[in-house]
Parts: sequence; structure tokens; C-alpha cells
Amino acid sequence: MGKKTAMDIEVRFGDCDPAGIVFFPRYHRWMDAASLNFFMSCGVKPWHELELVNGIVGTPLLEIHTKFYKTATYGETIEVHTTVEAWMAKTFRHRHVVRRGDTVLCEGTELRAFCQRDAADPERIRAIPVPEDIQALCQ
Amino acid sequence: MGKKTAMDIEVRFGDCDPAGIVFFPRYHRWMDAASLNFFMSCGVKPWHELELVNGIVGTPLLEIHTKFYKTATYGETIEVHTTVEAWMAKTFRHRHVVRRGDTVLCEGTELRAFCQRDAADPERIRAIPVPEDIQALCQ
Amino acid sequence: MGKKTAMDIEVRFGDCDPAGIVFFPRYHRWMDAASLNFFMSCGVKPWHELELVNGIVGTPLLEIHTKFYKTATYGETIEVHTTVEAWMAKTFRHRHVVRRGDTVLCEGTELRAFCQRDAADPERIRAIPVPEDIQALCQ
Amino acid sequence: MGKKTAMDIEVRFGDCDPAGIVFFPRYHRWMDAASLNFFMSCGVKPWHELELVNGIVGTPLLEIHTKFYKTATYGETIEVHTTVEAWMAKTFRHRHVVRRGDTVLCEGTELRAFCQRDAADPERIRAIPVPEDIQALCQ
Repeated sequence: MGKKTAMDIEVRFGDCDPAGIVFFPRYHRWMDAASLNFFMSCGVKPWHELELVNGIVGTPLLEIHTKFYKTATYGETIEVHTTVEAWMAKTFRHRHVVRRGDTVLCEGTELRAFCQRDAADPERIRAIPVPEDIQALCQ
Repeated sequence: MGKKTAMDIEVRFGDCDPAGIVFFPRYHRWMDAASLNFFMSCGVKPWHELELVNGIVGTPLLEIHTKFYKTATYGETIEVHTTVEAWMAKTFRHRHVVRRGDTVLCEGTELRAFCQRDAADPERIRAIPVPEDIQALCQ
Repeated sequence: MGKKTAMDIEVRFGDCDPAGIVFFPRYHRWMDAASLNFFMSCGVKPWHELELVNGIVGTPLLEIHTKFYKTATYGETIEVHTTVEAWMAKTFRHRHVVRRGDTVLCEGTELRAFCQRDAADPERIRAIPVPEDIQALCQ
Repeated sequence: MGKKTAMDIEVRFGDCDPAGIVFFPRYHRWMDAASLNFFMSCGVKPWHELELVNGIVGTPLLEIHTKFYKTATYGETIEVHTTVEAWMAKTFRHRHVVRRGDTVLCEGTELRAFCQRDAADPERIRAIPVPEDIQALCQ
């Protein structure tokens, strides 16, 4: 089945725009945080510790697709529910459902890859096959 | 054909993450800015002026789909090229192509709707048909 | 003495810069959130509810002074400890101490004023005397 | 006398809060960008290039003090005027004045230090004396 995590978010004044609602890129910040929270909940170390062990600097995004249904504002608590829908050879697909109680606010699908810093050129990063030990922890 | 706009972005240190590359939600902030820049380039007033005239508070996002191909870092100048691909009854679809010179960094498609503050409940906003005068300015 | 509040912050990947440490404006976002959290903990409503009652749209900042002692990174939990140090006629002074366990990361002092939307020109906001009922709730 | 730089900022919808004005931490992001812009205008390379040469990862902030006088909103163009007020042994002091035309919006003073990644523990950074070649470029 795969693990599921839920992460609470307290929506803040500074998350909202002049229309008084959450500015949409904030949801993507929260999905990004929920992705790392998912891995850390599964026992994976944060990237800055992992980089010292195996050179992995993170899981950059290759593609994201989000649908927005309802708005939220500050003073509300919302939740990001996160799973890995599919593990592929070099990528994996996250699903994030953001809710306020029973109301679904938005849903996002992310395609990500584990990346290492390039040994020859430390300014570049490149995708690697999904590490088996990490995948095993998440199932 | 429809108008096309290009907006320059100077990538800043604070736009980048610990992997040293632009943190992806920043691209969505830039696409959002490019959307308003598109309308203002077509002669539409910024929302805070428009709200006083016709109650429009902005064009909240209904859906976004972005593919990321190449990374960027601070000290670089990139461009967001923006069009309206389609005008529907109550929505419109933006296309944003983000480039560094000839290199396409990412491409995003946004579905948006013009919204007004609800007269009965000023804390709520609701979608309205695309205003004809605004659509005319953009073609 | 005055109330004291503490707000937990989970530091996220996207809060950190290419040096791998929290990008300093994030601390000011957290202090801003800690300020509203302080008032809400004292029983004051969030501004979007208060605006409907008495026109208060928030407590814009007049001055901030922050000293940074230690860095933090993602995967860590930190706390913002908040008080009101002084209530003046039209302003008040917050003190925020940000800690990771016993380690003080930074300390900030904020001068703020309660503001209302200007009745004659709703695009402008202006400072008002500190509302007595709000001050009473916070002591 | 020392160099002076001016950096234009187009204020965006997403820079503004529910009161419709620029959310104050954005000014600090812009001051941070104006600091790097100052050094790059003086001929200093961006940190990610400098790190490969001399290990410098940036100029983390030690202290900031900002006074806010006037508000700004989206659709406006503002400027950040930046100087180095003083060079000390291990630190330097920036002054940023943010203006919209002749109107001063806010003024900030930053104390910063050049930092390198610690050789023994690459997760830590430490302050170094201000590099003479960099100081020479800025005068």
C-alpha cells in the first residue's frame, strides 16, 4: 500500500494575498515540505545529512499538476495528506491532498527524482535511480 | 493571434534552495507576476484599481501544470514569455515559457478565472464571466 | 507582567538558502506570524474577522531591529517566544526570541501600530490608538 | 566615498498582504538582493562562483534595523539605493534606502560578515576578515 503522512499547516497572514486568500505558490511550498516530511517520517534523513553519506542533495521537481477547488485564509488550520502513488526507475510520483477538515482545498501530483551533485562539476546536479534502501523504507 | 509579453527576472540568492538552484514555487510566483504583467501590458489596470471600478479582485488560479527541464541559479537573468492560449466562458488559459536565452527552463499552463468579492459576504470571492472589455484589450 | 506565547516552527528545505541555512527574511515572517499568534492566543480575532467588526486590518510594522547569533537548517524545530514589552499611545513594542532548545538563534524587537482602512480612501490605511479592549486581553 | 547602486523593483501582487500593501519581509528580501547586486556591480562574482575560488558562500546577516515610513502596493516601481557605510575588521555595514520616486518608503541598516564553509565541518559556516580584494573593488 505504501505509507501515508499528514502534515498540519497553520495558515498565516503572510501566506495570503490582497484578495485575502492563500497565494497559490504557498500550497506548493507546503507540498514540498510535505514531501520531505513524508521521507523523514519514513526514517530517511534530511538531505543535508544524506549528502554527507551518499551525495543526495534532494528530490527536485520534474513536473507538478495542481487543481484548486476552495480557498483558505489565515487563522485556519489545514492538512497536507501525502503518499507516493508510483515508483518508477528514475522517478516517483507524489500525491498531495490539502484539506480543511472534510473540505478538499486542492490536490497536487508531483513527479520527482533523487539527485546527486555532479562529481565533475559540483555546480550541477543529476538524477539517479531511486535508491532501493529509501524506497524500501517508504513501503 | 493574441498578445505576447516577455518579463525579465533577475534570479536572486534568496530564490535558491540548499541545492543551489531556484526553488520551484518561485517559478509559480514569477508566472503569477507574468500574468498580471500581461494584463497590465494590454492596458488593464492592476486589481486594486479595478476593484474600485468593477469589483474584480484578481484572477485566482483554478489549475496549474508545469514541467521543469533545466535548473537556474542566482546571478542569471531569465525571461517569462506569456500568452493566453484560450478564452472560455468563465475561464482562460495562460501559457508561460520560462527561458534563459535559448534554453527553456520550464513551461506552465494555468487555468484562471476573473473573480469579484461577493456582495453578500465580502470574505468570499466568486468567479464571473470573462469581462468582454478585458478580453478585447488582450487580442 | 503581560502574556507570553511560544510558537513552534518546523524549519523546511524551502526556508533555507544556498548556504544551507535559514534565509533571514524567513525569521521575520515567523516573527510576524508569532505576533498574530500572540494576539489570537490572547483572544483577539484574526484581522479578517476583526475588520468586519471595527475596521482593523492588522498591525503594520513601523520598525524592526533583529540580531542574529546562530544559524538553523531544515529538519530542525525552533520556537518563537513573544511578548509585548511596552504599550504606548498609538504603538506597541513586541519582543521575539527565537530558540532551538536552549540556544538563542536571533532576537527581534518590533514597533507596530493598529491600523484601519481609511474611510475616505479605502486604498489607504492609517494608525489608530491601541484599542483598550485588545490591550486588556493581552495583560 | 564608496560606490552606490540602485536596483529597480516591480512590486507584484504576490508581494502584498491582505491589507493590500507590501508584506514587510519582502523589503528585506529586496535589501538582500540589493546587497548582492551591489557587490556584483562592483565586479565581485556571485557566491556560487566565488565558493569555487576562495570558499566564500555569502555574507550572512548579523544584524538588521529597518524603519518603515510609507506603504507600497503592486503595479508600482520602487528603487533600493545601497551603499557600504563602514568597513570593519570582520564585518561591514550596508545602508539601503527604498524609494518610490522622491518618497522614502523605508530605510535599513545591515551588519554582515563574509563567511566560508568550515573545512572540518562543511555543514558549518564561519566569518572571515573582509577580503581586501573585495573591499578594494567596492571603493
